[in-house]
Amino acid sequence: VSTWINGIAARELSTDDRGLSYGDGLFETMHLERGAVARLERHLKRLTQGCARLGIDCVADKLLREEIEARARTLSDGVLKLVITRGAGPRGYRPTGEERPTWLLSWNTARAADASLASAGVRVRFCRTPATENAAIAGLKHLNRLDCVLARREWSDPEIAEGLMCDSHGSVVGGTMSNLFAVRDRTLMTPRLDRSGVRGVMRSVVIDAARGAGIDVVEQHLTAQDLSVATELFLTNALIGVWPVRALEATSYPVGALTRRLQQLSVTLP
Amino acid sequence: VSTWINGIAARELSTDDRGLSYGDGLFETMHLERGAVARLERHLKRLTQGCARLGIDCVADKLLREEIEARARTLSDGVLKLVITRGAGPRGYRPTGEERPTWLLSWNTARAADASLASAGVRVRFCRTPATENAAIAGLKHLNRLDCVLARREWSDPEIAEGLMCDSHGSVVGGTMSNLFAVRDRTLMTPRLDRSGVRGVMRSVVIDAARGAGIDVVEQHLTAQDLSVATELFLTNALIGVWPVRALEATSYPVGALTRRLQQLSVTLP
Repeated sequence: VSTWINGIAARELSTDDRGLSYGDGLFETMHLERGAVARLERHLKRLTQGCARLGIDCVADKLLREEIEARARTLSDGVLKLVITRGAGPRGYRPTGEERPTWLLSWNTARAADASLASAGVRVRFCRTPATENAAIAGLKHLNRLDCVLARREWSDPEIAEGLMCDSHGSVVGGTMSNLFAVRDRTLMTPRLDRSGVRGVMRSVVIDAARGAGIDVVEQHLTAQDLSVATELFLTNALIGVWPVRALEATSYPVGALTRRLQQLSVTLP
Repeated sequence: VSTWINGIAARELSTDDRGLSYGDGLFETMHLERGAVARLERHLKRLTQGCARLGIDCVADKLLREEIEARARTLSDGVLKLVITRGAGPRGYRPTGEERPTWLLSWNTARAADASLASAGVRVRFCRTPATENAAIAGLKHLNRLDCVLARREWSDPEIAEGLMCDSHGSVVGGTMSNLFAVRDRTLMTPRLDRSGVRGVMRSVVIDAARGAGIDVVEQHLTAQDLSVATELFLTNALIGVWPVRALEATSYPVGALTRRLQQLSVTLP
């Protein structure tokens, strides 16, 4: 791991950072390949919008982009993670307004290649841990991720690639670390993320790719029953790309034509 | 501020601590007076129970108690805050099981004395930011507190001491940093915290004090309408004790007899 805080190499962070105290911040997990970050503009756009929603004084977009691009050129393929917090501050939920954001960039080598999963598809389960609901922060990739941690703790079988989380209304929100898509009647459906979940960068790529190809895309609340009658399911995130789901619990799915087409279409979309 | 990590004076924390990455931890905010922590047993009990729910390998209760007690003896009056996280670990929601908990103790001098507020009562508002809902972590004083941060950002008027937060069902969960009690027909009511909120230490003290005095206590979902017909309202936390509410938005409340009695009864309860 290599880590930089506000542009300076560092392994440690102030103990009074509000990111630690309250999860008062956001993050981006980016795919670094051949000296560049894939879909950097989408990541920065989401981050900037998230900072606006939380009232965090985002580091100038341009500065951050330049720093990331410069750093990326020196690093080998892997994962570049950016955390931005409201910064250090005194005890108490109320921001003083004097905080200066902390931005923490860290680089990891990629985990074992998942290319076979994108090809063959994955097995998926349902998690018992419910997805956290809060309309004020839904969709953001914020640092309040205890629900995902507890959901991911539910299984250790390496054959299960992902777990789906539902909210208290019985709507499927997505995977612990991925967004979910379902196909039915040549329509692409994906959970509405107005109460829970993260609006993933790869999710937006797939939606754009589908719409660009004239495929109907609907964001709606989806139940387990809706999934059981879908003809194709797949998962997305910025690192895995598109993973076809070949089994959800005891239900099998084919790796369908629309999934394959969206894998191809999305690869080339910035 | 004085800070210790795992018993050793330190100002900085590893950047790969899961407390920062995911809010994967808990905290306690304790009142330090005359060299001792008020109601330490209640704080440690809540912490231990919280660790069990999150699957965090809590530092041995005895060790932690001894460390806090020893530290408290050397410090002047103020606030002692304990954060316990699952510890440092590689990227990814899934705990490896190899993590060793981080426990971070920090001491602050108390803020300006609030004794006048406990006597005269406080003004309170409603917040627009909804309380986060998740039955799996409801009641815990975990590190996922973005909802409280956003709610507390809604006002800066120093005459408003606290803001009440509601969940998506219209139930009042409590204040941003306090628990709420309402009195009606000589019954004490406080929000059920099965979907949201924190089971405060002072909340448990007041419930115990009331029941000990033969007063009915009911934990239930309370709406704004329920509050409007209450005869007394008050707020609690470990630092403020019991604050009578004298106004909630445009509605005035007297500082009632039951509130005064519970203030007296709770002072002496460990």
